[in-house]
Amino acid sequence: SVWVQMQTVTLIPGDGIGPEISAAVVKIFDAAKAPVQWEERNVTAIKGPGGKWMIPADAKESMDRSKIGLKGPLKTPIAAGHPSMNLLLRKTFDLYANVRPCVSIEGYRTPYTDVDLVTIRENTEGEYSGIEHVIVDGVVQSIKLITEDASRRIAEYAFEYARNNQRSSVTAVHKANIMRMSDGLFLRKCREVAENFKDVKFTEMYLDTVCLNMVQDPTQFDVLVMPNLYGDILSDLCAGLIGGLGVTPSGNIGANGVAIFESVHGTAPDIAGLDLANPTALLLSGVMMLRHMGLHQYAAKIQTACFDTIKEKKVLTKDLGGNSKCSEFTTEICRRVQDLA
Amino acid sequence: SVWVQMQTVTLIPGDGIGPEISAAVVKIFDAAKAPVQWEERNVTAIKGPGGKWMIPADAKESMDRSKIGLKGPLKTPIAAGHPSMNLLLRKTFDLYANVRPCVSIEGYRTPYTDVDLVTIRENTEGEYSGIEHVIVDGVVQSIKLITEDASRRIAEYAFEYARNNQRSSVTAVHKANIMRMSDGLFLRKCREVAENFKDVKFTEMYLDTVCLNMVQDPTQFDVLVMPNLYGDILSDLCAGLIGGLGVTPSGNIGANGVAIFESVHGTAPDIAGLDLANPTALLLSGVMMLRHMGLHQYAAKIQTACFDTIKEKKVLTKDLGGNSKCSEFTTEICRRVQDLA
Ligand SMILES: CC(C)[C@H](C(=O)O)[C@@H](O)C(=O)O
Ligand SMILES: CC(C)[C@H](C(=O)O)[C@@H](O)C(=O)O
Repeated sequence: SVWVQMQTVTLIPGDGIGPEISAAVVKIFDAAKAPVQWEERNVTAIKGPGGKWMIPADAKESMDRSKIGLKGPLKTPIAAGHPSMNLLLRKTFDLYANVRPCVSIEGYRTPYTDVDLVTIRENTEGEYSGIEHVIVDGVVQSIKLITEDASRRIAEYAFEYARNNQRSSVTAVHKANIMRMSDGLFLRKCREVAENFKDVKFTEMYLDTVCLNMVQDPTQFDVLVMPNLYGDILSDLCAGLIGGLGVTPSGNIGANGVAIFESVHGTAPDIAGLDLANPTALLLSGVMMLRHMGLHQYAAKIQTACFDTIKEKKVLTKDLGGNSKCSEFTTEICRRVQDLA
Repeated sequence: SVWVQMQTVTLIPGDGIGPEISAAVVKIFDAAKAPVQWEERNVTAIKGPGGKWMIPADAKESMDRSKIGLKGPLKTPIAAGHPSMNLLLRKTFDLYANVRPCVSIEGYRTPYTDVDLVTIRENTEGEYSGIEHVIVDGVVQSIKLITEDASRRIAEYAFEYARNNQRSSVTAVHKANIMRMSDGLFLRKCREVAENFKDVKFTEMYLDTVCLNMVQDPTQFDVLVMPNLYGDILSDLCAGLIGGLGVTPSGNIGANGVAIFESVHGTAPDIAGLDLANPTALLLSGVMMLRHMGLHQYAAKIQTACFDTIKEKKVLTKDLGGNSKCSEFTTEICRRVQDLA
């Protein structure tokens, strides 16, 4: 008999369609015999001592122990002063890098083919500092905060990512022609870090130019690294190029080895519970997670089964252009995973 | 005999390919017998009293008198502390609205068809305030400034533009989920102004969502209004959808009735003087200008001649996929303009 070491992963199913697509992913991982032990936790914001918003203690404890999370979409209650759950998670675990590989999916038609790039977004500061003031009546300022440490950290992450994933270039995206000091600092750190990665080509480009070039020919880009807001924009733009948030995986890398992988689409309350949801984004986030954990063979198997199912076009959920239920799509992927075994 | 009232327009040919494409536009306007009297002025930044950067007095004086400018690309000297010429012009004439109609050009292939939208960018404040500080070593802040007055002014401009140009909806683009106070103020003013334009549909959308939806289906958008940086990004993104800066016109609307229309591409020093440049962006900016001046028939004639030339694909400059010189392309448009007379 063979002993397999199971690694614990904290599973945060989330709201709306979250539980359905999480169940789908668990089934597919089972079919692949991925050595993952799920520890399910609910995450809703609670008020801690001093009125500070926090995530529940048992979820925090599980993540601190497992270091790896997979999460579905979370709804953010509209209660006044309630923080975005996504922002709260980023803060709680210092998830400083948002990583989104955008790769064209064969058989899923968009205006673009052969997209194969990765956006790496600084996730902790910049325009998301939350510092704003009313100066006088009718005059408001928001503060964009850029630090040397966070800029160096994200630049190092981007170059290491490029090197470890056989990618040949890193482009720093900025507006240092306008924000000379803040984006200038970010850019300077990218340049400095680039010096230590001579095997990776380094280029810099204005954000507006990147957007223009991106929609004209996305195949010219490889790894892109940028401050928070620019990453928010570019990562969604790039998701659009390959078919939207329903097929785009995402990973958040934190300090101390913590990482949370997640689908970035919404909770889709209108179809929740109807077995109509598309689990692809969460599944591909799970694939990213497996790679992060060093479980490359399982990742490859699941990814192939998923892409083959989409390419064959026989069993697809509605948003992918088919008529099948979430459970049927899931079963089809499981079948293919087992065939690949 | 018929007397025609000629209106004076300040022509700023600009640098690099600027003079060639300006000459092309002048020729085509002549062929159309457009009642425009050009007043040519050079614009380079000069140091005024107190060391302040200014545009030359004769250019300023001409613009103050004519109120209407057409300008080619300007190079920004890399001298330390030298301002961007574009920013300096925006400031000098308080050009608060940058308007960019993005319309698919028949016969010029891009991944998209039927794009027909207008981006309206607040051009004076926001992330372009120029206020930045080093807080402590390695920590920098940039200040984004949003005012009630500028937000109301741009919102009013957008709604009036929509109404006057038979457009049915205005979408405010923002990140008020993150910058609650600054983008919140901008959004509030848009909502207030919307109340006075019940004939125009008003919607609001996050910038990231707009970018994602834009690359998936730009035909869903009509007029978009937004703060400065978002406009910088989106206007270039949208230009990319229809073929790039070489075919995208732009207008800057200022206080006191001043307006400057311009091509937003670069000076292309590598092909300057070689009769290879494409004058389309400057010509279409001239067409926007004619509409702004109420000279609709001339605008329509020139636009038709230009689009027909592109559609027929026989006489095109290199960047448009042809082999013709700038002068040949210009002659062809002139011929068609005269045929339309
Ligand atoms: C939900 C929101 C706070 C968030 C952001 O703006 O960062 C979202 O757009 C994202 O990209 O995760
Ligand atoms: C040249 C530069 C200052 C400018 C900007 O960032 O606004 C340019 O990108 C533009 O859109 O006119």
